[in-house]
Amino acid sequence: MDQPASDRLESIHERIRLAYDPALLQTAGEKLAQELGRHLTRVQACEGRVLNWASPQDNIARAAHLADNAVESTDPTELVTRFEKLVHEMLSHGHNLHDPRYVGHQVPPPIPLAGLFDAVGSVTNQVMAVYEMGPWSTSVELAMVSKLAQYLGWTESDYAGFVTHGASIANLNALLVARNVALKGVWESGLGAPTKPPVLVVQSDTHYCIARSAGILGLGTSHVIKVGLDDRRRMDVTELDQTLTRLRSEGHPIIAVVACACSTPIGAFDPLDEIADVCQQHQVWLHVDAAHGGSVLLSEQHRHLAKGLERADSLVWDAHKMLFVPALCAFLFFRQKQHSYEAFHQDAPYLFDPTAPGLAEYDLGLRTVECTKRSAAYGLWGVWSLFGPQLFADLVDVTMELGRLFHEKLAASPDFEPLHEPQCNIVAFRHLPPELDGATLEEQGEFQRRIRRMVIESGEFYLVATRLNGTEALRVTLINPLTTGKHLDHLLDALRQAGRACLSL
Amino acid sequence: MDQPASDRLESIHERIRLAYDPALLQTAGEKLAQELGRHLTRVQACEGRVLNWASPQDNIARAAHLADNAVESTDPTELVTRFEKLVHEMLSHGHNLHDPRYVGHQVPPPIPLAGLFDAVGSVTNQVMAVYEMGPWSTSVELAMVSKLAQYLGWTESDYAGFVTHGASIANLNALLVARNVALKGVWESGLGAPTKPPVLVVQSDTHYCIARSAGILGLGTSHVIKVGLDDRRRMDVTELDQTLTRLRSEGHPIIAVVACACSTPIGAFDPLDEIADVCQQHQVWLHVDAAHGGSVLLSEQHRHLAKGLERADSLVWDAHKMLFVPALCAFLFFRQKQHSYEAFHQDAPYLFDPTAPGLAEYDLGLRTVECTKRSAAYGLWGVWSLFGPQLFADLVDVTMELGRLFHEKLAASPDFEPLHEPQCNIVAFRHLPPELDGATLEEQGEFQRRIRRMVIESGEFYLVATRLNGTEALRVTLINPLTTGKHLDHLLDALRQAGRACLSL
Repeated sequence: MDQPASDRLESIHERIRLAYDPALLQTAGEKLAQELGRHLTRVQACEGRVLNWASPQDNIARAAHLADNAVESTDPTELVTRFEKLVHEMLSHGHNLHDPRYVGHQVPPPIPLAGLFDAVGSVTNQVMAVYEMGPWSTSVELAMVSKLAQYLGWTESDYAGFVTHGASIANLNALLVARNVALKGVWESGLGAPTKPPVLVVQSDTHYCIARSAGILGLGTSHVIKVGLDDRRRMDVTELDQTLTRLRSEGHPIIAVVACACSTPIGAFDPLDEIADVCQQHQVWLHVDAAHGGSVLLSEQHRHLAKGLERADSLVWDAHKMLFVPALCAFLFFRQKQHSYEAFHQDAPYLFDPTAPGLAEYDLGLRTVECTKRSAAYGLWGVWSLFGPQLFADLVDVTMELGRLFHEKLAASPDFEPLHEPQCNIVAFRHLPPELDGATLEEQGEFQRRIRRMVIESGEFYLVATRLNGTEALRVTLINPLTTGKHLDHLLDALRQAGRACLSL
Repeated sequence: MDQPASDRLESIHERIRLAYDPALLQTAGEKLAQELGRHLTRVQACEGRVLNWASPQDNIARAAHLADNAVESTDPTELVTRFEKLVHEMLSHGHNLHDPRYVGHQVPPPIPLAGLFDAVGSVTNQVMAVYEMGPWSTSVELAMVSKLAQYLGWTESDYAGFVTHGASIANLNALLVARNVALKGVWESGLGAPTKPPVLVVQSDTHYCIARSAGILGLGTSHVIKVGLDDRRRMDVTELDQTLTRLRSEGHPIIAVVACACSTPIGAFDPLDEIADVCQQHQVWLHVDAAHGGSVLLSEQHRHLAKGLERADSLVWDAHKMLFVPALCAFLFFRQKQHSYEAFHQDAPYLFDPTAPGLAEYDLGLRTVECTKRSAAYGLWGVWSLFGPQLFADLVDVTMELGRLFHEKLAASPDFEPLHEPQCNIVAFRHLPPELDGATLEEQGEFQRRIRRMVIESGEFYLVATRLNGTEALRVTLINPLTTGKHLDHLLDALRQAGRACLSL
C-alpha cells in the first residue's frame, strides 16, 4: 500500500500472505493427494467401517474443538502438519462411499479424479451467473449440456440446458417455468383468485421435492393430484388420461404432469412415450424427473427404459447420481429453448451488459434460481475428457447388473422377500426370518428399521429404508461399481445376524 | 461377482478399476498440487491476464473438442499426462481472481487451502440431507453455524442455522418461511383469494433475488414495495414506518421487511437497529440480506456497521464472500429455532427414521430447499481450524481499508468521480475525462460501459458496472487482499488509457 502503513497493517499483511502462499498450497496439496490415496486403498479393501458412526453431539463437539485450536505459529511446516491432521480427522469421521459395502442412497462413490477436477474450480473459484466471471466454467457446462443432449436426440438450436445445485432446485426451476407458462401474468401479479385452483398432476411415488415445489410456488400441496400406479409402480396412463379430462372439465388450470425416470422408492421407470402422448393430447406440460435414470441413455443395453424422455418439455438429469461425479451437478433441460427464459422476468443491470449483445445467452444467471453458481460441471467434463463416455456406460451396466444379481439372491433366500422385480439398481426388500411368522405388518416393519440401524451403526454395511405398501422395507441402491456378489451375500448374512440379535433382545 | 461373468463384464470391470485406482488418484493429485502452486505464483505476480477473455463460441468449441478426445489407453502414465493437460487447459482459460488486479464482483479469491479442504468432501462425496449420510459434514457445518452465531451474540438453544448453496437460495428459503408464518395454511392451500394481496417491503437496492423470491413464491413481483433511501442509499426508516402503517391500514398481509447489510450497488449498510424497532412495533418479520456484510462482525473495527443484525428474524451471511472461501457456502440463520422448520410441512419416509428419535434435528434436509447438499462448510471449517478467526478479521480489515484508499484516490483525481463515500469495500465511480464535458448522461454512461469492456477484455484489470441514479457507473469490490495502492493507481491509468482509445475511435 502506498499510504504510510501502520505496524498493525504490516503484521496483518504478513498473516494474509502466508495464508495465500503458493508454496504452502503446493505442499499441502501433495500431502492431501497422498492422504487421499492411502485412504482410498484402505476403504476399497473394506478395512475399517463403511459409516463411521458417532452421535451428532460428539461429532459437533469434536469439530468445534478443532476449530477452537488453530495453529498460532506462522511456520509453514507446522501449518502443513496441522493441515494433515485436519484432513485425517475429516477422513476418519466421514462416510466411506467407496467401500464396496456401501449400498445406500442414490449418491455414488464418485470417480475420484472428478473430485480433483472439481478442486481446480474450488481453489481458483470459477463461478458463474455471468459469462465473464466464469468463461471456462460456463463453457465446460454448456459443452456437457450439448454432450448429454445428443443422447436425447435433440437438435442443437432448439433446446436449452444448464446445471443447478441439485435435482430439488432443478425440479423447482422447471415447475416454476411450467407455472409461469400455464398462468399468464403470475410472475408479476402473483397467484390471485382464479376460478379454480391450479393443480400439479404427479406420479404417486415422485420425490418429495415435487410436492415441496407446489408448496414453494404458492400452488399448495393439497393441489398436487396423485395418479395411481400399475403393478410395477409405474404411472397408470389410463388413469392419467381420465384425471386430465376431469380436471380440464372442472376448469382447473393444469401446471404440469410430473413423471419419473425413475421413481425413488423402487426405481420404476414410467412409460414416458405413452405419457407424452396423453400430455400432448391434453396440451399439458410434461416434466420428467430423470435425476437417477437419465444416465441409462448412455447405455446401449438400458436406454430403452427412458424411451420417450426426449419428448418431455422439461427434465432433470443428475450427473451426481448415475454419472458418478461428486454432488452437486444436476442438469435441467428444456426441449424448447425459449422456455428456459420463462422462469424470471427481470434483469439486474450490474450483471447483464447491453454493450455486449448476444452475450446474455451465456449469462446463465438469467435462468437459474442461483445467482452465483459453482463450476459444478468441472468433474463431469474432466472425467469425460479423460476416460471418454464408455466409462459412464460401463458404470450404468455394472450397477444395473448388480441390481439383477441382488434380486436373484433375495429370491433364492426363503428368509428374504424381494418387494419387486428391479428395473434398475434400486431394490426394496424385507428380511422375514421364521421367528416373525404371525407378526403383524407393523411389527415386521419395526424389525426392518431396527436391523438396519444395527447394521449401519456397526459400520459393516450401509443401506437405507423406505415405506412401501403401508410397511417399512429395506432398500439398497447398488451404486458402488466395485461391489460384488460376495459383498451382497455378506450383506444378507449381516442382516440375518442383526435379526437374531434383535430377536434375542 | 460370483456369477459366471462374461468377457464383456470382465473388460468393463478392468476399465472401472482403473478409473477408481488409488495410485492414479494419488499421482494425479500430486501433479494437481504442483500445477496449482505454479499457477498461483504466476497469478499473484500479475504474469498473464486477469480474465482470459475468449468468446463463448470459441471456449465451448475448445471444451467440446477436449471432451471428444479422451485417452483410449489404459496406461496410467498416459492418463496422468492427459490429466495434467486438462488441468492446464482449465487454468489457462479461467478467470484469475487471485491476480491483485481482480477488483470485480463480490466473489473473493479464496484462501487456497479452503479449496483443498473442500476437495476432501468432493473426492469422498460427503453429502447431507440426513445426518447418517454426512455425519462429519453435518457436524462441521453445525459447528461453524455455532461459531458464527457467537458473533451475533445469540444463545445456543434459541436459534437455528444451516448452509445453503448461495444467498439467492438462502433468501428464498427465509422468505418462504416468512410467507408461511404470515399466511396460515398457505403451504397446503396455496395462495388463494385473500382480501388484499400480500406484500414484501424491501430496501430499494436489495439484490434482484429478493424480487425473484416474490415471483417464485407466488406473491408476484408487483407486490414488492420499495422503501426509499437516504442520501447514503440506506433504507429511510421514517418512510418504512409510514409504509407499514399504510399497508396495515389497507389490510395487506405483510410477509416481511427486507433490509441490507450491505446493499449490492454501493455497499450501504441499513440502520438495522432502527429498522428492527419499526418492525417490532408493527410486528413484521425482519429479514436481513447480510450476504456480504455479515462478516464485519468478526472485525472489532467494523462490526458497528451491522449493529442490530442480531435482531433479525432471519438473515443470510455468505462465507463465500467476505470469509474468503470458495463458492458456495451461504449461511441462513433463524433467530427462533422453530421457524427453521416452517419452510416445509412434510416428510419423506425413506429419509427420516422414527427409530432414531432426536436425530431429525440433524437431518438438515428437513429444512433446506436442497435435498442432497454438498459438504459446503469444509473449506470454512478447515481454514478456521488451521489459521483461527483472526485471519478472517484481518481480511475484512484489509479489504475495507482498500475501499477507503481507493475512494481517496478517486477524490484526488479530477477526471474521476466517486459516486459515494464508501461504507465498505464496494466503490462505485465514473471516469469523466475533460473530453466528455457537455456530454449527455446517456453518453457518459455508454462511455463507462465501453471503457470497462475494453479493460476487462484486455485482461489488464477486472472490474464491473452498475446502474446508479439513472446512469451507468463503474464499480469495484476490493476483495483481493493482495491488491495494493499501486495496483489501484494502475487501474485508474488503465481506465484513462481505455478512455483515450474510446474517444479516438
